Amino acid sequence: MPADDSTLPRILTPVALSPENFKPYGDVIQTAGKDFHYINNRQVARYHDLAEVDTLEEGGKPGISLFVAQPYAYPMRIAEMERHPLSSQAFIPLQGRPFLIVVAEPGETVRPEALRAFISDGTQGVNYHRAVWHHMLLAMDEPATFVVVDRIGSGPNCDICAMNDGEETVMLTLSD
Amino acid sequence: MPADDSTLPRILTPVALSPENFKPYGDVIQTAGKDFHYINNRQVARYHDLAEVDTLEEGGKPGISLFVAQPYAYPMRIAEMERHPLSSQAFIPLQGRPFLIVVAEPGETVRPEALRAFISDGTQGVNYHRAVWHHMLLAMDEPATFVVVDRIGSGPNCDICAMNDGEETVMLTLSD
Repeated sequence: MPADDSTLPRILTPVALSPENFKPYGDVIQTAGKDFHYINNRQVARYHDLAEVDTLEEGGKPGISLFVAQPYAYPMRIAEMERHPLSSQAFIPLQGRPFLIVVAEPGETVRPEALRAFISDGTQGVNYHRAVWHHMLLAMDEPATFVVVDRIGSGPNCDICAMNDGEETVMLTLSD
Repeated sequence: MPADDSTLPRILTPVALSPENFKPYGDVIQTAGKDFHYINNRQVARYHDLAEVDTLEEGGKPGISLFVAQPYAYPMRIAEMERHPLSSQAFIPLQGRPFLIVVAEPGETVRPEALRAFISDGTQGVNYHRAVWHHMLLAMDEPATFVVVDRIGSGPNCDICAMNDGEETVMLTLSD
């Protein structure tokens, strides 16, 4: 007897992150393929202003934090997504290790079919634009430290959307 | 015949960087010894707001850039120092490798005896406060990439102070 399709999970498989494919969600912070100019007597190459830092709404200020993320086991179920309605949020990995990114475009809620998954090669960071839905940090294999540039300020700035409330189950899987 | 002391260079030797010893110059961006709180269902530890990001003066905005720094050979002569009169500037190493920091407290010029040198253990970044004199990026051994959070904006925001104009020569040396 064939499986009942309605009970099969939707499979989400990451694709290699690039500035082009991530454009609907934000910026990729990377040197590869980007322009630079020399400073400091040509001792330093400056890859200038790679992300739209949007942190000043409602009295906010930009801040630098460090996040230490525990890894998940994959495949994993996407249980919830979050967004920051007032600000951008950037994550840059400090140990050069790949990590996963799951996003959906801004909107009141998140539909399972709107989810997209990317994998950073470990030299790439991301900056989610304001109100872009994103999963919590998705480290792989071992704990990972990220530098985070986001809004420091008061007031509610994190919405959560629970997935699977009567919708398809979405499983994030490392390969097809 | 004894050497003429007046022609001997001043030797500057780095000490291990810490939030305490770097306090006159800015912030150390590190997790070690810092408080954190859990977010994301305790999957992530947030070390919150570790640096005073000061980038809004005269229409500036905060930005994220990447700098790729070529290493110097040490000992090296300290030829010039720079400062940003309008803003802070943060540097966080992306490959976990030690780097050197040479600073002096704000003032119209830099006296050789005011210079201090520190070594980051590679998990530590620094944020120079506004107008703190600092040397250009001092990578060690091999090229190093840093995430930089500084002011994006127009107008002059970099003063240079040439060292050794009739002063002592200062040599940055890795060990005593």
